[in-house]
Amino acid sequence: MDEVRVVRLKDAKVEAPIFIEGLPGIGNVGKLVAEHLIDELNAEKIIEIYSPHLPPQVMVREDGTIRMMTNDIYHGEIDGRHLLILVGESQSVTNTGHYILSETYVKIAKEFGARRIYTLGGYGTGTIVERPYVIGAANKPELVEEMKKYGVIFKEDEPGGGIVGASGLILGFARMEEIEAVCLMGVTSGYMVDPKSAQAVLEVLQKILGISVDTTALQERAAEMEKFLSQLRELERASVPRDITKDEDLGYIR
Amino acid sequence: MDEVRVVRLKDAKVEAPIFIEGLPGIGNVGKLVAEHLIDELNAEKIIEIYSPHLPPQVMVREDGTIRMMTNDIYHGEIDGRHLLILVGESQSVTNTGHYILSETYVKIAKEFGARRIYTLGGYGTGTIVERPYVIGAANKPELVEEMKKYGVIFKEDEPGGGIVGASGLILGFARMEEIEAVCLMGVTSGYMVDPKSAQAVLEVLQKILGISVDTTALQERAAEMEKFLSQLRELERASVPRDITKDEDLGYIR
Amino acid sequence: MDEVRVVRLKDAKVEAPIFIEGLPGIGNVGKLVAEHLIDELNAEKIIEIYSPHLPPQVMVREDGTIRMMTNDIYHGEIDGRHLLILVGESQSVTNTGHYILSETYVKIAKEFGARRIYTLGGYGTGTIVERPYVIGAANKPELVEEMKKYGVIFKEDEPGGGIVGASGLILGFARMEEIEAVCLMGVTSGYMVDPKSAQAVLEVLQKILGISVDTTALQERAAEMEKFLSQLRELERASVPRDITKDEDLGYIR
Amino acid sequence: MDEVRVVRLKDAKVEAPIFIEGLPGIGNVGKLVAEHLIDELNAEKIIEIYSPHLPPQVMVREDGTIRMMTNDIYHGEIDGRHLLILVGESQSVTNTGHYILSETYVKIAKEFGARRIYTLGGYGTGTIVERPYVIGAANKPELVEEMKKYGVIFKEDEPGGGIVGASGLILGFARMEEIEAVCLMGVTSGYMVDPKSAQAVLEVLQKILGISVDTTALQERAAEMEKFLSQLRELERASVPRDITKDEDLGYIR
Repeated sequence: MDEVRVVRLKDAKVEAPIFIEGLPGIGNVGKLVAEHLIDELNAEKIIEIYSPHLPPQVMVREDGTIRMMTNDIYHGEIDGRHLLILVGESQSVTNTGHYILSETYVKIAKEFGARRIYTLGGYGTGTIVERPYVIGAANKPELVEEMKKYGVIFKEDEPGGGIVGASGLILGFARMEEIEAVCLMGVTSGYMVDPKSAQAVLEVLQKILGISVDTTALQERAAEMEKFLSQLRELERASVPRDITKDEDLGYIR
Repeated sequence: MDEVRVVRLKDAKVEAPIFIEGLPGIGNVGKLVAEHLIDELNAEKIIEIYSPHLPPQVMVREDGTIRMMTNDIYHGEIDGRHLLILVGESQSVTNTGHYILSETYVKIAKEFGARRIYTLGGYGTGTIVERPYVIGAANKPELVEEMKKYGVIFKEDEPGGGIVGASGLILGFARMEEIEAVCLMGVTSGYMVDPKSAQAVLEVLQKILGISVDTTALQERAAEMEKFLSQLRELERASVPRDITKDEDLGYIR
Repeated sequence: MDEVRVVRLKDAKVEAPIFIEGLPGIGNVGKLVAEHLIDELNAEKIIEIYSPHLPPQVMVREDGTIRMMTNDIYHGEIDGRHLLILVGESQSVTNTGHYILSETYVKIAKEFGARRIYTLGGYGTGTIVERPYVIGAANKPELVEEMKKYGVIFKEDEPGGGIVGASGLILGFARMEEIEAVCLMGVTSGYMVDPKSAQAVLEVLQKILGISVDTTALQERAAEMEKFLSQLRELERASVPRDITKDEDLGYIR
Repeated sequence: MDEVRVVRLKDAKVEAPIFIEGLPGIGNVGKLVAEHLIDELNAEKIIEIYSPHLPPQVMVREDGTIRMMTNDIYHGEIDGRHLLILVGESQSVTNTGHYILSETYVKIAKEFGARRIYTLGGYGTGTIVERPYVIGAANKPELVEEMKKYGVIFKEDEPGGGIVGASGLILGFARMEEIEAVCLMGVTSGYMVDPKSAQAVLEVLQKILGISVDTTALQERAAEMEKFLSQLRELERASVPRDITKDEDLGYIR
């Protein structure tokens, strides 16, 4: 088997698309946004990518049929814009696979004449994040300035450890192919799937792309999560001696 | 050394065979069934598959001679049907090896014009299973309906984590080669080799294939296991205070 | 870098040699015997084998110069017999490397027209072994019978887990190349380098090959080890309450 | 993606250069020296080396732009000497990658006609080192003698475990290409980044190369570290009962 196998499902008419990556990662932020976009745009799967660097297993659908681990590219249109959206069950499970797959994604983006790439992810802080915001990284200084206008935060020391996996490597390979690329990371605790952080990323992405999608589904999931966190806080309060809980600014819970 | 080396031992006349995989796995359920079939059909080894992705060791036979780690394909006939049966000491020990070997199996099946593939395995529940049943997965929706007629169970959420290793990947590669393939999994605790679960799988498989093999040997092993489990339950009861054991519905032991 | 690089240091006149492998392993038994043979025969290094599957480091000699990790083949003569002796600092550190290197050794043996291969190793029992003996495995049934005449022990259930690494795989690849090959394993605790076990292996090997080498150096190391073990037993006795030590058959120390 | 990708940034006029390796390692000693040289010589990056054996991530610069993991070669001149200086964020994270990358470095050195290679690293002792010194290893006995004149220490049993990674393997590959190569290791605790040890290595390197660079920046960092260690010792003293601290020769803190 080859290191990677790209299967074209259909010849879509893709015009000057924006390429969006939302593979699984911290808080599954990128995946939530990408899957939400696919749903709302009724995007169509046009490419399946197979690789022995993905986990050695198949998934079982609800109807009892299996599907192999793939990374898939969907094509959708909204407000006159063409989007290519990359999603999947898993990223590479080997070191070299991360490089091989990320290069493959970028080559596909280039082949379709992608005007720009956005990789979506989460940035884990280790603490519960009340009001998620979006931090960024880019493969060209001009992009940093442009992104700031849309409220993307750039801090000198974040993300400290760099950007691991496809969201980072795609930016690197894109620079080699001279495609502008930006990574948008929703700040999140990193402890759970985070639709609130995904919503923050989606809002920024909509502003950048000048598109408008229905975000109800994501909002509902975010509201559910907010409710869950409120209950958690309530429980926390109830189980702690009175005088301590008076201090409303408990850093570890905010 | 190549990633995989396929050694043909003899030119067997194989007609429109059914391909059955029974490599080691959970409860060794698939292996028990496949080896039982090989014994009962007096099947003949026709292919040996070597790979550096198998464990880096040799096994020592009782007579002091060694044999390398291989995956082997046997050919047998029963009730006018040709079977190709894949067994072996081990599955791949590397991630990419799982893909390479599974693709190899399917290519061999295709080369022999296999009409269908059955992969056999166990599905571990983590609790002792009194009456094992068989759950399934398939690479085509029609197969799911067909299998239900033979008593194969399909549940929306099982197997939850997908199917790991050859039993799963073979279904995926078979779909690429347009070969119908079904995975039959005997429900088992996952804690020990399980001939009872293997018996359940063999019964279903016989019904599906319309064949009838002597299952005495497997029944005996299952009976031995049943006896062992009874003793275990007896011990358990004896060592627990009276009033607690009154509750016969102890979930953890049933 | 290639998977393996074979560097020929000189054109030795090697006639119908016996190939002996003594790479590091359990109790370093094989290595001790092979290095002892190299010393006593004044054998000459004729081949160096480099591979990225060996540890990623260099060793520093006492004079401050470095040498890369290699597996080396020496050529020596004794009593009219030519020996090729394979030694090295390390075996492969990757799974596939074990296969690649073992196949390389056998191809070199074949190229030199090796009449037979002996792989030397240790068989760890987990308990202190007072009188080490040698167990065997072979890649042909006739060899098993032949070896028994020299006092090599073959037990149905030993070695239980097979033979891991070069000592085992060489036997497998040799069978493919139709070279007779035997593995001789000195029984050892497995907890420390074991010259006593090495001496047992060397004695058997001398009988088999019909050669006679000075074993003084190995005997001395074995005697030192024996002394060390006696002290250990003495200490053990002193630190244990009287009535318990009366039982001289303490299994765990014998 | 290839195992390694060498990107030439510009055609530098490099004459009979000395090749210096300072990749990350124990105490980051080599990296500190190499980066200091690059700063002081205003050396220019001429080559970037990419590899899927480097960590699967990108780094984010302070300005929000990313850069892929690379190993980089800089070209600088000082006192009529040309230096090629190899630095980077990381060494290989795979076993075979260490070999592949080290061979690449040496081939580049050969291509530029490098007269000699110095690999720089740290040698961890596990205890705080008050007055760091430099131990060495070389790929030719004559080099050992030459290095001793410059105060490089060669001890029979150091470094005990050999030299792991690029600093070691480069010496091995250089010998194959008949390039003289020396490894200079600053003795260090191994517990923290050690500018004092780096300073010791730089002093020896200057003597060897007959060059003179401003070491102020490194001295300042070393002084800061010295101050930090003094405070540590002070704290240690304060927190230990009087009579014990009277013994000024506390081995574990010196």
